[in-house]
Amino acid sequence: MPDLDDVPAGAPAVADPGSVGVVASRDFVHAAPFTFQSGQSLPGFTLRYETYGELNAARDNAILICHALSGDHHCAGRHATDDRKPGWWDNLIGPGKAVDTRRFFVICSNCLGGCVGSTGPSSVNPATGRPYGIAFPFVTIRDMVRAQKLLLDHLGVATLHAAIGGSMGGMQVLQWGIEYPGFVRRLLAMATTSREGAQAIAFNEVGRQAIMQDPAWNQGDYVREAGPRTGLAIARMMAHITYVSDASMDRKFGRRKKGTANGDAYTFDIQFEVESYLRHQGQSFINRFDANSYLYITRALDQFDLAHAYGSVETAFAPVQAETLVVGFTSDWLFPPEQNRAIVHALLRAGKRATYAELATDLGHDSFLLESEDLYALVRSFLEREAAVLVDFSI
Amino acid sequence: MPDLDDVPAGAPAVADPGSVGVVASRDFVHAAPFTFQSGQSLPGFTLRYETYGELNAARDNAILICHALSGDHHCAGRHATDDRKPGWWDNLIGPGKAVDTRRFFVICSNCLGGCVGSTGPSSVNPATGRPYGIAFPFVTIRDMVRAQKLLLDHLGVATLHAAIGGSMGGMQVLQWGIEYPGFVRRLLAMATTSREGAQAIAFNEVGRQAIMQDPAWNQGDYVREAGPRTGLAIARMMAHITYVSDASMDRKFGRRKKGTANGDAYTFDIQFEVESYLRHQGQSFINRFDANSYLYITRALDQFDLAHAYGSVETAFAPVQAETLVVGFTSDWLFPPEQNRAIVHALLRAGKRATYAELATDLGHDSFLLESEDLYALVRSFLEREAAVLVDFSI
Repeated sequence: MPDLDDVPAGAPAVADPGSVGVVASRDFVHAAPFTFQSGQSLPGFTLRYETYGELNAARDNAILICHALSGDHHCAGRHATDDRKPGWWDNLIGPGKAVDTRRFFVICSNCLGGCVGSTGPSSVNPATGRPYGIAFPFVTIRDMVRAQKLLLDHLGVATLHAAIGGSMGGMQVLQWGIEYPGFVRRLLAMATTSREGAQAIAFNEVGRQAIMQDPAWNQGDYVREAGPRTGLAIARMMAHITYVSDASMDRKFGRRKKGTANGDAYTFDIQFEVESYLRHQGQSFINRFDANSYLYITRALDQFDLAHAYGSVETAFAPVQAETLVVGFTSDWLFPPEQNRAIVHALLRAGKRATYAELATDLGHDSFLLESEDLYALVRSFLEREAAVLVDFSI
Repeated sequence: MPDLDDVPAGAPAVADPGSVGVVASRDFVHAAPFTFQSGQSLPGFTLRYETYGELNAARDNAILICHALSGDHHCAGRHATDDRKPGWWDNLIGPGKAVDTRRFFVICSNCLGGCVGSTGPSSVNPATGRPYGIAFPFVTIRDMVRAQKLLLDHLGVATLHAAIGGSMGGMQVLQWGIEYPGFVRRLLAMATTSREGAQAIAFNEVGRQAIMQDPAWNQGDYVREAGPRTGLAIARMMAHITYVSDASMDRKFGRRKKGTANGDAYTFDIQFEVESYLRHQGQSFINRFDANSYLYITRALDQFDLAHAYGSVETAFAPVQAETLVVGFTSDWLFPPEQNRAIVHALLRAGKRATYAELATDLGHDSFLLESEDLYALVRSFLEREAAVLVDFSI
């Protein structure tokens, strides 16, 4: 669940030799019926995506980047030279970076059900001429992955060198290994889980309630600019707290006060800097995100449960052929290290090549997004090492 | 911040020899002007309170119980024999219990600014004939304590044997030791802090925003039954998550689903038991709590900062004469053990008699409210040991 609103504004991409530079999004239109896991279907869908680097002749150097709840397809470079911020994983992806675009063909698409160009509840329902709203089919992590596969087929990718993602992106990465085992060579999942615990579901539920109880939600039937902005901002403010950590908030804001020379102000307006920061998080989010997409995607997160879906996590992982690296972060209390480690243990019990790395940070769940030479080194070496040759001894 | 909605319903008090039995609340009316720390004032105020046990002839066996954010004065016994639940600290207070009402005269009052009988923003402003709303003076922890002192004077208490409280109640306990050092012999604070960190302020701010952004809040001008119930329920649902722990929620609910035989339901209605539980928490809270009181009391929590108010925590504690026991709980992530321990270290640096005890629980912040023989033993022995005789060596 990347904190897009918190990426530091840097110099324009053109001045940065490690940047992929100015990039453009494209739309993949799948003009055939698509049936969701729920049994509902759409006559077709669009995925907005970006690519960086070039697909090689063997068509086997592609890396799929999977975004988190509030992320999108724009993960590197800038859309214009004067963009204030680059894509959300620009620190990781670019020429010479850990995900090296001189070598790899990098693809990232806005997820099915999203609101940044891909088909989702804010898309127009051709049957009514109005946004789908909650008439949109329920979306699962597996639906997102199946839609991504159609995009990769369209792009001519023969094999994925790797699928990489954090948080919800990590769930997609695991699902990729299960759903298309012969297609993906390496799974790199960070700050994720094979299923959320009760606390994570609880936070998502409070966010959904904040949205759905906002009168402007109107049973999901609204136009974007007149939607449940208040509820969505509340949901985002709360969720943001869960993406960081007590220690990082204390370091960044502590109890510093706004204005009034740190004196005692008696007001319900902003007193503390952390309040101002949170309100900014809420306000900037409602200008770029759709409330119904927030409902759909948090439901997809809550419903993702490999043990439940396949009988056990080990059974879920039985088809996996890829090598897997899972990275947990010590200060992540949303999807804590234990849940990341448990994924690797289940893979090992299923007889797979998997390893776990834990990075000590105090930045919380969003650690996977932040600058870390340790993380870059892990990613780089995992991508560079040879994939295991799979020999079928059963012949 | 006691979880009043979660106290198990037991047998009627009359069947429980350890219960104080059927109790009645009374009102203390202070009919003289009261000036708040903010400089604002009221012509007088009412505190609703309960007492259990008898004040002795020396008038020195009184114990003051200080409640937390969502608590009130009804901390033991039942108001009627068929009450579904006893007072919120009934497990701790009663004949033969850790706070033994055969020996002690126990007093608990609803805090100033509260909404359960004491004067607060939902009280009628005699100047307008309508509730004060946000015309009510800002309340601080120190204001609450000063009002309690007037009640104790009215009751004829000469010396407090102890002041006891958890969470916000613990803040009051610390303030008691600073404000009335010659009056209180023992301070027993649990699951508390000498000042909240940024994360706790952040959660309170999201709760306040949920209330204040609810159109029914109407700048604080509403009648109780038509108030911002939606916003208050959202605030409570979120806050409740912070009172418990990931582990306790997982043990209690895990990912169990409601109805539909644990199958995959595709709906934004309740799917998981934890969602149903949280909604119940929100709904039961709005029937017993006033949204403006929630704003005032969370502001009091956020503003409580002994280091800021007195220059340093050590300076704050300089006047303290009482012996202090602070109890932290390992799973409390709202006011974590470090913050509790830090109080004792500051007291020790200030040359005071203070000790810290840490109990291993996985129940989170609300651990102080729950049944624990370890906690009972700590409380009982702290109350029973002789207070230090304070000898002034400066003569």
